[in-house]
Amino acid sequence: MGDYLTTPELLPGERIDQLYSEDIQIIQSPQVFSFSLDAVLLANFAKPPMKQASTLVDLCAGNGAVSLFMAPRVKGKIAMVEIQPRLADMARRSVALNQLDQQITVYQQDLATIFDQIHKDSIDAVVCNPPYFADLPDSKKNPNQYLAIARHEIATSLETVISVTSGLLKTNGKAYFVHRPDRLPELMSMMQKHRLAVKRLQFVYPKVGKDANIMLVEAIKDGGTSGLKVLPSLMTYDESGEYSAPVKKMLYGD
Amino acid sequence: MGDYLTTPELLPGERIDQLYSEDIQIIQSPQVFSFSLDAVLLANFAKPPMKQASTLVDLCAGNGAVSLFMAPRVKGKIAMVEIQPRLADMARRSVALNQLDQQITVYQQDLATIFDQIHKDSIDAVVCNPPYFADLPDSKKNPNQYLAIARHEIATSLETVISVTSGLLKTNGKAYFVHRPDRLPELMSMMQKHRLAVKRLQFVYPKVGKDANIMLVEAIKDGGTSGLKVLPSLMTYDESGEYSAPVKKMLYGD
Repeated sequence: MGDYLTTPELLPGERIDQLYSEDIQIIQSPQVFSFSLDAVLLANFAKPPMKQASTLVDLCAGNGAVSLFMAPRVKGKIAMVEIQPRLADMARRSVALNQLDQQITVYQQDLATIFDQIHKDSIDAVVCNPPYFADLPDSKKNPNQYLAIARHEIATSLETVISVTSGLLKTNGKAYFVHRPDRLPELMSMMQKHRLAVKRLQFVYPKVGKDANIMLVEAIKDGGTSGLKVLPSLMTYDESGEYSAPVKKMLYGD
Repeated sequence: MGDYLTTPELLPGERIDQLYSEDIQIIQSPQVFSFSLDAVLLANFAKPPMKQASTLVDLCAGNGAVSLFMAPRVKGKIAMVEIQPRLADMARRSVALNQLDQQITVYQQDLATIFDQIHKDSIDAVVCNPPYFADLPDSKKNPNQYLAIARHEIATSLETVISVTSGLLKTNGKAYFVHRPDRLPELMSMMQKHRLAVKRLQFVYPKVGKDANIMLVEAIKDGGTSGLKVLPSLMTYDESGEYSAPVKKMLYGD
């Protein structure tokens, strides 16, 4: 995978990183966007659609990390949706770099307009690593506009993302989100409002004895409200300050 | 504590158990009601009201375990509310056994009628270990009626308990619940409906690698919806199958 002769030109400041566990290369830039552990956690948490005819949509796709990492395990087509042209361009070049053009399409547009491209009620699964922070008047934002839009709800909001997710999904389609635990009450009430029943939650703790700092959520469109499971706790780091064994496996493989 | 000469007579099948960490004795009966680890976890999770004039109400009090365990750390008065006469009687005798009659009052009545005894909007904190299981037509219930009522929503419901909790609390009063994680979506939406903002959640896992089986919840009446914390994960058992160090400390003290 990744013949260097076919590698697209990198723009200044960009580099190619590798997720060894999935043998996927990804174009990154510290100045524009680099994927975080959250993307790796979400890609591992989500159960990929396994039918050849299935479709996966990656909302707030950024440089495409989440669905690129899932691609080797997804049988059907993938659509990435990213509003920022610079990030969508990185995602397109990463798709080409991994020779996944037949499987993955990148839509550079506001996710609120995606029904122009993708039919309502047609998708099997949605993954989303949305901006984590509400766009409050007094919230400190990154002066770098790329990062500000990726992290704060400037170009979209949690409710818009959840509403579009629900609109895209078929009945019984699955939504997979990564978010911060402090947004759980909002996220649950908005999902309920938009016909998404939360079925699995997993909390990720930096290490033993610390509050959770990442939350993974699986919801089913039009599912019943009973039967929520809270999956085993996941520690990012072990006692010695190294990545824990489960996280190492996600990053580097067996 | 507990001069044996003043010990109330035990009924057939009853015994006196001791929570060593708090030096509290409690009358139990395997045939009627025995406290579980959940009661110990809730008593440790709840922050006791520290003012002399403060009041704590224990709803669905059972044999009184939760607030008996909290009593040494609570500065003010405690009211237990228990609908089952047999359990309320055990609680009363345990209160006497620990010479806590000046601090604790036991109300044997349906919690839905408690506003006859306790003013609305007057309480600083409520603790509650409610029945965990919905009273569905097809749900298997314990043939022992004492245990069936303690475990299933036969005599009350989650919404009634939450509504009464909110009615009792002052503005900024605290509610502390223990429940099963699968009831989280309902619990959060009912608390939101009844002006209780969830502020702290803690998930208890039987051991590493297992789904959470107990959830501890702190909510504030009329609190803002932001700022939820998910506290460090708590394991009941360690790798060797013994109680974990934090649980041992709750049961046996330092």
